[in-house]
Amino acid sequence: MNLDNDFQVIGLGLIGFGYWGPNLARNFSQQENCQLVAICDKEDICLENAHRQYPQAHITKDFDKILSNPQIDAVLIATPVSSHYALTMAALRAGKDVLVEKPLASNIKEGTEMVEEASRLERILAVDHTFLYTSSVRKIKELLSNGVLGDLIYLDSVRVNLGLFQSDINVVFDLAPHDISIATYLSDQDPEFIQAVGMCYGTNNIESVAYSHFEYASGLISHSHLSWLSPVKIRKTLVAGTKKMIVYDDMEPSEKIKIFDKGIVAAEAQLDSRSKLDIENERVAKIGYRTGDMVAPKLAISEALEVEAKHFLDCICTRKEPVSNGEFGLRILRQIECCHLSIKQNGERIRLDDIL
Amino acid sequence: MNLDNDFQVIGLGLIGFGYWGPNLARNFSQQENCQLVAICDKEDICLENAHRQYPQAHITKDFDKILSNPQIDAVLIATPVSSHYALTMAALRAGKDVLVEKPLASNIKEGTEMVEEASRLERILAVDHTFLYTSSVRKIKELLSNGVLGDLIYLDSVRVNLGLFQSDINVVFDLAPHDISIATYLSDQDPEFIQAVGMCYGTNNIESVAYSHFEYASGLISHSHLSWLSPVKIRKTLVAGTKKMIVYDDMEPSEKIKIFDKGIVAAEAQLDSRSKLDIENERVAKIGYRTGDMVAPKLAISEALEVEAKHFLDCICTRKEPVSNGEFGLRILRQIECCHLSIKQNGERIRLDDIL
Amino acid sequence: MNLDNDFQVIGLGLIGFGYWGPNLARNFSQQENCQLVAICDKEDICLENAHRQYPQAHITKDFDKILSNPQIDAVLIATPVSSHYALTMAALRAGKDVLVEKPLASNIKEGTEMVEEASRLERILAVDHTFLYTSSVRKIKELLSNGVLGDLIYLDSVRVNLGLFQSDINVVFDLAPHDISIATYLSDQDPEFIQAVGMCYGTNNIESVAYSHFEYASGLISHSHLSWLSPVKIRKTLVAGTKKMIVYDDMEPSEKIKIFDKGIVAAEAQLDSRSKLDIENERVAKIGYRTGDMVAPKLAISEALEVEAKHFLDCICTRKEPVSNGEFGLRILRQIECCHLSIKQNGERIRLDDIL
Amino acid sequence: MNLDNDFQVIGLGLIGFGYWGPNLARNFSQQENCQLVAICDKEDICLENAHRQYPQAHITKDFDKILSNPQIDAVLIATPVSSHYALTMAALRAGKDVLVEKPLASNIKEGTEMVEEASRLERILAVDHTFLYTSSVRKIKELLSNGVLGDLIYLDSVRVNLGLFQSDINVVFDLAPHDISIATYLSDQDPEFIQAVGMCYGTNNIESVAYSHFEYASGLISHSHLSWLSPVKIRKTLVAGTKKMIVYDDMEPSEKIKIFDKGIVAAEAQLDSRSKLDIENERVAKIGYRTGDMVAPKLAISEALEVEAKHFLDCICTRKEPVSNGEFGLRILRQIECCHLSIKQNGERIRLDDIL
Repeated sequence: MNLDNDFQVIGLGLIGFGYWGPNLARNFSQQENCQLVAICDKEDICLENAHRQYPQAHITKDFDKILSNPQIDAVLIATPVSSHYALTMAALRAGKDVLVEKPLASNIKEGTEMVEEASRLERILAVDHTFLYTSSVRKIKELLSNGVLGDLIYLDSVRVNLGLFQSDINVVFDLAPHDISIATYLSDQDPEFIQAVGMCYGTNNIESVAYSHFEYASGLISHSHLSWLSPVKIRKTLVAGTKKMIVYDDMEPSEKIKIFDKGIVAAEAQLDSRSKLDIENERVAKIGYRTGDMVAPKLAISEALEVEAKHFLDCICTRKEPVSNGEFGLRILRQIECCHLSIKQNGERIRLDDIL
Repeated sequence: MNLDNDFQVIGLGLIGFGYWGPNLARNFSQQENCQLVAICDKEDICLENAHRQYPQAHITKDFDKILSNPQIDAVLIATPVSSHYALTMAALRAGKDVLVEKPLASNIKEGTEMVEEASRLERILAVDHTFLYTSSVRKIKELLSNGVLGDLIYLDSVRVNLGLFQSDINVVFDLAPHDISIATYLSDQDPEFIQAVGMCYGTNNIESVAYSHFEYASGLISHSHLSWLSPVKIRKTLVAGTKKMIVYDDMEPSEKIKIFDKGIVAAEAQLDSRSKLDIENERVAKIGYRTGDMVAPKLAISEALEVEAKHFLDCICTRKEPVSNGEFGLRILRQIECCHLSIKQNGERIRLDDIL
Repeated sequence: MNLDNDFQVIGLGLIGFGYWGPNLARNFSQQENCQLVAICDKEDICLENAHRQYPQAHITKDFDKILSNPQIDAVLIATPVSSHYALTMAALRAGKDVLVEKPLASNIKEGTEMVEEASRLERILAVDHTFLYTSSVRKIKELLSNGVLGDLIYLDSVRVNLGLFQSDINVVFDLAPHDISIATYLSDQDPEFIQAVGMCYGTNNIESVAYSHFEYASGLISHSHLSWLSPVKIRKTLVAGTKKMIVYDDMEPSEKIKIFDKGIVAAEAQLDSRSKLDIENERVAKIGYRTGDMVAPKLAISEALEVEAKHFLDCICTRKEPVSNGEFGLRILRQIECCHLSIKQNGERIRLDDIL
Repeated sequence: MNLDNDFQVIGLGLIGFGYWGPNLARNFSQQENCQLVAICDKEDICLENAHRQYPQAHITKDFDKILSNPQIDAVLIATPVSSHYALTMAALRAGKDVLVEKPLASNIKEGTEMVEEASRLERILAVDHTFLYTSSVRKIKELLSNGVLGDLIYLDSVRVNLGLFQSDINVVFDLAPHDISIATYLSDQDPEFIQAVGMCYGTNNIESVAYSHFEYASGLISHSHLSWLSPVKIRKTLVAGTKKMIVYDDMEPSEKIKIFDKGIVAAEAQLDSRSKLDIENERVAKIGYRTGDMVAPKLAISEALEVEAKHFLDCICTRKEPVSNGEFGLRILRQIECCHLSIKQNGERIRLDDIL
């Protein structure tokens, strides 16, 4: 318990108590330096749930009550994407810091305005890209930052399951933000070119399978297989660096990350073993790779959303920028839109800078 | 042992005793209705190996001795692809049936001539697409043919390992023929459009990672991830039908094929469960899929190459066309060339019919 | 919602809100035909938790208030085992039905009295052996009952993890009740002989690794490996029947049960294949087994404790005996004690009937 | 090729070309410093096979020809165990070094004589316990020897498959020698007490399932589950040391050995976290264990039998004792016999020293 007299308890207002809002409520309410002051939703049943679980919080259908409440320092927005722009702009203008659900906005124009307004008003604007706060992704980032992996040359992600078929969003919208935010965070780059293809199954015009391919100026490529048509759930990402390679399997209960001390080396050194005639040996002789130990590092077992909550609260106190700030969210949004556009143009290779 | 007086023993000549030739020799020599009459190679060490293992066979550096030997009914060609055309044409014209290593030829023009010559001379021309003869692929084909899977809507294949880096061929040439032959065999279609991207790692201009995407007139899509840059070896194909879905994992020691009684159903029937607020339940409510038992059928444990050898010998006796005949091989070759072209054109979507 | 006028709402009193009590509260409170009337515990912090989560329930430190409350029909006891006897006897004598945490009691004498008292007073006495209510175990029981597996000949269970080292109970007490209750439920028999060995690691005299071996009059054997010294968590049970065999892996997210159409057949039929010289074939020739498909049946995804709660409530309404009634709990207790005794006698083989 | 004038080429005679003999022939014939001079068997078909594969070797039915051949320095014996004694004694007395298949002999008396005779005549007597020469077991031994694992406290082995049902030997004879040789090699101890139980399935009196339990003076225990009645093949050994723990899974294509930086620590340090009420946390609080990274070390991909062949040839040249010499083989034999005896005495705990 922080006994400092100046200890700041941050007042929070939560908008939206449907699918994701309760997760935000649960994680933020476990933090010591904040208080869930009010919860706002349009649905009676959601408000009833909110009241039962958070009897001490104000429950309201009126968003303006959140805006005008001086106890509330920051607003958490977990509503459909179409409302992100209006709610965020109003909250920022009421002087609140904001954490908004991903994606940042419905389109780049709105997103750009939101980022600019937050900057102008000197408010914190964070976007809820939860994967950046998992111990797995943070460990990979650490291994990149300290040079263990070498340079990033190749990312491949499989994110498939039997799913969904929502009437409003396609599989790219549903699943790609995870891969894109991870690739952007790890590589610290935006792609130069994007190419994506999709397949609509059934009568509607909504993609249920998609493949996206990103090329970066550094030579890095990043590919995703996104699908609602897989009988098994797979969440697997290959991260190939010039020095080491990682397989990140998010479905593994433990050992989510395996670091392989494998890589490609000049093959010449092995050419003298050419006389071996055994099939496998012959292949090995041609290959020229290096293999060593595999290590599955111990990972912190913290919940990503809890790490994110702490980080957001810390940014509010210290006024530093969140890792997944508005600008970051805007970069992700731009890439998603570019994927959409490429799909609709039959896999046309599009320069990201051409997306406005 | 077939004791029929008319029992035909087929005489075989094998050209090439390097990497793959010994496998052909081993499997054919175990068949009762054929005899390995002669083995031809250009390298002394290969001929020495051949002699030690098959002391009863003629050993020669002179291909013409194979052609002129009246005991030889059929020629097995396991030489580099650049020699396929000349060797096959000569063998056909000498009246021999031919089994040639995949790919059929260096280019479509050569391949077309080979197919036409075989047809004109009424010779058997088979191409060694071994995967068609595995019990796994044959079981999937059977499940498609008898309607168990429904219509094929989606194929996804991952064929990656740490590999190779040959100086002459790229990863598409090395690995794609397997996926393409499987997709062509299962779907009984050629794609309408092909799109592929690749990445060259290192200083040379040879792709070590590639993704190919095929669209078929029926609506089917087929995608492959091909890589020499993966720290783990994966050979996994998803086969999604309208009724059932299969995961085919060639690295599994047993249970290579898992048939999932899963599929997509109209979601409306479940909308009344909308009131559930639990995250997972909410998702289930929206989805509308069907899940049932999983079955891993018992598969024959025969070696694919042995099945293929029997099939080729049977075709020689009965003069029927092999499953992987010259025409089939030509269809695969055309698709591989189309992938190459698309890669070199930065992932341009190419109509297969435009490849001549 | 049951609108029948005679619809009975069963009043429940919960004793103990520490480790397991909250799970009982959560599952029972989701049932329509009961009401959690009161919660009793000795610890302030537990009572505070109870009040926060169940504000409508009476909160008390006084067990007598539970006994004397006419609204309470049944008492759920989730306290340390040493208190089971006194609490259960008092509740039964106050006319309440009882669900008591496993194991039933501290010793057989107490347990026997509890069972007799429940019988004399015609009260329901259920013991919380949760595994009997999992869809996995129920599916295996179903496959045994309908003859699919044939006769049970062999059970082998591995239940290990890195664990615990409590100062009061050993690994047998901690983990064996699960395996014993499953074996007793599936086989519908008690063992004739029990033999067990253990190892104490460290300075105390408490077993952290144990193996138990049960022999049944039918010829069935059942073996358990129990350990707190395994770096990986394993929960795997082999169930071998004369017709089929099951591998039940409770750590699998899906496919917890795999049914193998495998078994042993007379080997004579295959002896004529003796001429095969290949190592594997030679082995196959000698073996004489039968292998067929593997099926992983779809299992209900219900929580075991919820199934158990419904069952207990149903037994209260209909006055039928629970599957895991007092007598069942007593049978389990007797086997656990027999294991202990065998361990302390260096693995002596003990006749279960000699345990009094 | 070693061009040293003094380079000794060791002449070998192989007795038995049935199941295992060809493996010995293949591995020894690949070594430079030996020559397979003669092969002896009683069966025509075996001799034909031998001749086809090793045309340069003398082929004979007469064992005396092996004994009297001055070119033969060492004899490899791969015949049924009942003949080991006579063949080995004759070979030793003819001045030959001997490698005999496991188990050393039919009984301890014979085995003891063989060891004494080899010692008296100063001949090398090696027993083919192949597992000692696998890279997995050698790596574990290395980690024990250099102190990485700490002291060995617990070995648990599962060695099960659908198998066999030979009419002459039981599952202990078939599978236990592997576990016993590994445990003896790793621990460098013989057990003090042995206890084993078995089950005979079917009409004969031959055990198809067995469990053995070994206690060592150091406190180490070692347990094996041996079965021919498992639908899946498992070869898994847990090696628990005081510092680290290993899971050795011989069915894994790679990563056969996983070293867990896990162990048990004093729990007191964590008792202050007792206030946590979450179930999992509560458990963690009680436990007091330590978890760190997992490492799967790179293992040499050499074939065990090749390593063993080199080692035997080296021992012949240098006159040093093989790792699995006659004395080692005798220690294994004694433990197997003790298991048998315990099984036949219903799991009686037997002091190994009482086995004569």
